[in-house]
Amino acid sequence: MQLAMIQDKLIPMEELDPVYLDRGIFFGDGVYEVVRSYDGKVFALQEHLERFANSLAAIRITNVDIGRIRAQVEKAFATAAIADAKIYFHITRGSGPRDHAFSADLQPNFFLTVTELPDDTEDKTKGVALSTHPDLRWKRCDIKSLNLLPNVLARQDAADKGCAEAILVNESGFITEGSHSAFFAVFGHPPDKEKGVWGPLKQALQTAPLNANVLPSITRKYVIKAGEEIGLDIVEESLTPQQVRHADELFIAVTTRDIVPVVKFDDAVIGDGTPGAQTKLLARRFHEFTK
Amino acid sequence: MQLAMIQDKLIPMEELDPVYLDRGIFFGDGVYEVVRSYDGKVFALQEHLERFANSLAAIRITNVDIGRIRAQVEKAFATAAIADAKIYFHITRGSGPRDHAFSADLQPNFFLTVTELPDDTEDKTKGVALSTHPDLRWKRCDIKSLNLLPNVLARQDAADKGCAEAILVNESGFITEGSHSAFFAVFGHPPDKEKGVWGPLKQALQTAPLNANVLPSITRKYVIKAGEEIGLDIVEESLTPQQVRHADELFIAVTTRDIVPVVKFDDAVIGDGTPGAQTKLLARRFHEFTK
Repeated sequence: MQLAMIQDKLIPMEELDPVYLDRGIFFGDGVYEVVRSYDGKVFALQEHLERFANSLAAIRITNVDIGRIRAQVEKAFATAAIADAKIYFHITRGSGPRDHAFSADLQPNFFLTVTELPDDTEDKTKGVALSTHPDLRWKRCDIKSLNLLPNVLARQDAADKGCAEAILVNESGFITEGSHSAFFAVFGHPPDKEKGVWGPLKQALQTAPLNANVLPSITRKYVIKAGEEIGLDIVEESLTPQQVRHADELFIAVTTRDIVPVVKFDDAVIGDGTPGAQTKLLARRFHEFTK
Repeated sequence: MQLAMIQDKLIPMEELDPVYLDRGIFFGDGVYEVVRSYDGKVFALQEHLERFANSLAAIRITNVDIGRIRAQVEKAFATAAIADAKIYFHITRGSGPRDHAFSADLQPNFFLTVTELPDDTEDKTKGVALSTHPDLRWKRCDIKSLNLLPNVLARQDAADKGCAEAILVNESGFITEGSHSAFFAVFGHPPDKEKGVWGPLKQALQTAPLNANVLPSITRKYVIKAGEEIGLDIVEESLTPQQVRHADELFIAVTTRDIVPVVKFDDAVIGDGTPGAQTKLLARRFHEFTK
């Protein structure tokens, strides 16, 4: 008799809830998105749905109607009636007997949650500390997949060190991104005539370029837009931890928290140890987009 | 109101079955094993449990009693009463609100299935075809984790090409292993006085060395033992696809199927296009271990 066991309980296979045979749990065979609302308005839903469609296509889940996903997200958000909400959703390839290869007739599983966003005023006011961790992830991090164990292990390593995020460093010694955020540095002191500092006249906002090892972050896109609008040079070039230690300002950017200033990077204090001026300007500009 | 949505159905968060909040599905935050029985006897359970313990420790799941896992496997196998069974089991870190970082008080989730092994006599008699695929996996494939999306995509690519397995090739051009199997080559023609072939006197069994990018396969270990016993030189050195095309024999090795001869590798026919002599000897020897 074919059977399953859940904790200590034996169950005949034919009575098993298909949720236990979800390819999401067997293989991480699915993709996800996280969107958020600001004051009752979902931010950048269209961009998130487009990225979701790209992720689905990249892992060859072809039978999903994105219009229907949009309707489900909107229905759940309306029902929850949470002004500042985090909306998480994933689709897996479906449930079935465990086999790496998949048949085209699997029915995808959709799952979504709407929850309250935790208050992070203190982190945003004081800034957070980051630590570095080897980037052990797979080679298609441009796909927002459910294969996140290396992210989990890196993030926990940071938590153990009292840090808010792990910044991932690849085998060549370059920073890719955070375990669950994009990562930015501001370089170049602005002119200050009183102190006799005349140049450079322009500061630069730097982050890693998009490639197969970096998620095309929606928040990253809006941060760059904000940077352009406040007059920063945008530099999409990889950084090393050594360069970053000498940055004027650092911050991370992620949907659920938008821009979070960074005041410590491993053992290096960044700037004067408080959130940087450009970071504050960027955060203010970013909030304009969310209205 | 915090809520969840499963397919089209809205559910208040407090009524949601914790199985939907399993970190296994959110992150692939768990590890697994597959063991099999031959004629009513589970093969190499102790080795599989030791590897499982290593995987758990590597991802910092520390509150699992391996003795209890052994008892659960044995109970399920006895109840199923399937002589030639496949036993799959995984443990995830537990269920809870989605957060990359984890608390130590999460209660792990255990899941197991016992199913009939499909008959693969034809594959073993005729041999199978393999195709190559880039190795896109993470950098700790020595951990048998639930992050298997690159394996799924590679295996499906092979299936699309009519092949039984995808052989993974890393960025340096070397084969690591199969998407769900170990990979072996036999080199060096045996002496054949009638044909005037006098050397080399010994054939070599070659497979990639164990490192962070290769699973410490239990079947691999027993194949090597079998190879030593039938007088093959054992060479643990990485192979390139180009070298492999000129091998005398190829085979894959995996718990559920032990040794499966390979007669085609991408577009190259291996040997005379039928299972090799050493492969057959190894399979026979392997079966002695399972009794």
